[in-house]
Amino acid sequence: MSVTAPKGFEAAGVAVGLKSSGKEDVAVVINRGPLKVGAAVFTSNRAKANPIIWSQQVIQDGTVEAIVLNSGGANCFTGSFGFQTTHQTAEKAAELLGVSAGDVLICSTGLIGMGDEVFRAKVLTGTEQAIAQAGGDGGVAASEAIMTTDSKAKRSIVTRDGWSIGAMAKGAGMLAPGLATMLVVITTDAVLDAAEADAALRASTNRSFDRLDSDGCMSTNDQVTLMVSGASGITPTAEDFTEALAEVCLDLARQLQADAEGASHDVTIEVVHAASEDDAVEVGRSVARNNLFKAAIFGNDPNWGRVLAAIGTTDAAFDPYDVDVWMNGVRVCTAGGPDAPREAVDLTPRATHLLIDLKVGDATATILTNDLTHDYVHENSAYSS
Amino acid sequence: MSVTAPKGFEAAGVAVGLKSSGKEDVAVVINRGPLKVGAAVFTSNRAKANPIIWSQQVIQDGTVEAIVLNSGGANCFTGSFGFQTTHQTAEKAAELLGVSAGDVLICSTGLIGMGDEVFRAKVLTGTEQAIAQAGGDGGVAASEAIMTTDSKAKRSIVTRDGWSIGAMAKGAGMLAPGLATMLVVITTDAVLDAAEADAALRASTNRSFDRLDSDGCMSTNDQVTLMVSGASGITPTAEDFTEALAEVCLDLARQLQADAEGASHDVTIEVVHAASEDDAVEVGRSVARNNLFKAAIFGNDPNWGRVLAAIGTTDAAFDPYDVDVWMNGVRVCTAGGPDAPREAVDLTPRATHLLIDLKVGDATATILTNDLTHDYVHENSAYSS
Repeated sequence: MSVTAPKGFEAAGVAVGLKSSGKEDVAVVINRGPLKVGAAVFTSNRAKANPIIWSQQVIQDGTVEAIVLNSGGANCFTGSFGFQTTHQTAEKAAELLGVSAGDVLICSTGLIGMGDEVFRAKVLTGTEQAIAQAGGDGGVAASEAIMTTDSKAKRSIVTRDGWSIGAMAKGAGMLAPGLATMLVVITTDAVLDAAEADAALRASTNRSFDRLDSDGCMSTNDQVTLMVSGASGITPTAEDFTEALAEVCLDLARQLQADAEGASHDVTIEVVHAASEDDAVEVGRSVARNNLFKAAIFGNDPNWGRVLAAIGTTDAAFDPYDVDVWMNGVRVCTAGGPDAPREAVDLTPRATHLLIDLKVGDATATILTNDLTHDYVHENSAYSS
Repeated sequence: MSVTAPKGFEAAGVAVGLKSSGKEDVAVVINRGPLKVGAAVFTSNRAKANPIIWSQQVIQDGTVEAIVLNSGGANCFTGSFGFQTTHQTAEKAAELLGVSAGDVLICSTGLIGMGDEVFRAKVLTGTEQAIAQAGGDGGVAASEAIMTTDSKAKRSIVTRDGWSIGAMAKGAGMLAPGLATMLVVITTDAVLDAAEADAALRASTNRSFDRLDSDGCMSTNDQVTLMVSGASGITPTAEDFTEALAEVCLDLARQLQADAEGASHDVTIEVVHAASEDDAVEVGRSVARNNLFKAAIFGNDPNWGRVLAAIGTTDAAFDPYDVDVWMNGVRVCTAGGPDAPREAVDLTPRATHLLIDLKVGDATATILTNDLTHDYVHENSAYSS
């Protein structure tokens, strides 16, 4: 179901040969209303793909009729020809749907630098086919069409009293979103205006996708889009809607983490008693990006020294000699010195919990990351993506 | 020869069982004068090992009589017991040499959290043995005693008209110095005062060790020490001395890069036409720390898209659509679009050259890094260090 779970949406996923596997590679999600509200957040990478540049303009007025997504090519750094491809895709969709091209979002994912004449022809064909096939049962096919190195499609649905939120996501590498992540499309039939949709989306992504840092590499094509049909006729409170949206976003973030390229551990880094939430995030992210720590987790080695060395590179408030570190429930470092022996820690489960107690304040934050494995190196050296 | 090449220095390296291999693990370098000038730069990691905390006090007055170094344990996060071990080591050396403990520097390297009673006893024994054996031919043994995962000892000598500089270094992992790197001891028989030694050392490390970023992980124990005996009786100009010192530092930085754990490529990232040197360093370092770029180099994949994605995360002045990227002499990206085909680039040699032309100014900087390999993951997951 995914994006077609809420009332008022149609979707499809079709295969036009952008993927060498022959699998689905172009998806469309259409908002049939009555509302045509949209909100989106984008990668903060200054090197932005053509679809990002286009979509940032489209979202300005808070109106979105449809979104077209393709895998098999990022259309990033493909020059003015690539931008025209994005523009033509929106024009094609608009023409077929009888709407304005300025209300059609575009997303692409795949190899940077990929976006030639063949790519353009296939994307335009896919857009035409997808719109022709779009229906209320197309959510699953759409979620499969945006997969790249993903081993499984990511979907999420939350149902409340009379209204619901549906969503799909792709992502398995370059997972270090800054303000957004990967390709995510979220739909809802709740009644919201553009400002409410934008506020709820930013609040939800801020503590879900933005806290996922699998490999420290920020993508050029990240986009999270929320489309609002209002077809339920129900207007939830801002608190209720944001809470439900945050639940969907965190569910998808966990799915992205669980499917990260080559990973053998899903590491939850919980930083507590920080002076501020920013400090907690900085500490968690620094540890999440430390290759030595990540390789140690792969080796089931509770190497807390690498954790402290990573914390030491931050500007966060802490006393190096008053920090506690726990791994999977065992305190391995107390007050900046050794505590339980390494043998006491079992790091064999995929789910790994690292708790860092900074002992200076009341703020907390949780960062999601993965370990650094042979398979990560293999996937990212043997295949261009 | 290394640190005993210049006149006025004695050194030794002895084995006391800190290394399970039974190889040399404690080194000493003694300045016999007539000058006893010293300068040092330290890791900027806020999580500092006990020897760093001690040495930062010792160097305040610009006088250094001797330095004691051990491998086989970092004596970092070992509590007050660990600090007392460092203090006792300096006291022991001072007593045997008839000098003040406040003029004896200490360096340690090895596993963080390692520094118990057995460690202390071995370090004290090693200090005693090394001082007893110290002589003008001890430079090689000293350079071997500070090795950890290094596959070879790192030494460098520069000879000028009547004076010389000798040096030794260790380092193969956690290579992302901030103001310093690894353990490095440099000696000279030129005549300099403490302020001149300090200025020359900072100028030289700033563009050598500080530009090395092998794996993005900053150590807790980095220290670069310069010891001045003045035994040649010759006073070079500040320019001549700094130029010679910079040559030694860059030579050692290249040796560290060439021996980085598990690396199969030595990557020189040259950033040109940047708006400022800081911008050039930021861009080079961002690329050097991008795991996807590093894995691509391991796979001999000229993936310039990952280079641009890394540049896009910086605050440096540049236009994403006016950047050129060259790999091993082939321009693979022009003005933010594809140029020469990937087949045109030969990435099989270990020496790899990445040139990034930002086209906005006149500043330049070169960052040295390595690729991300299966062997890096293996070495840092299978062994605790």
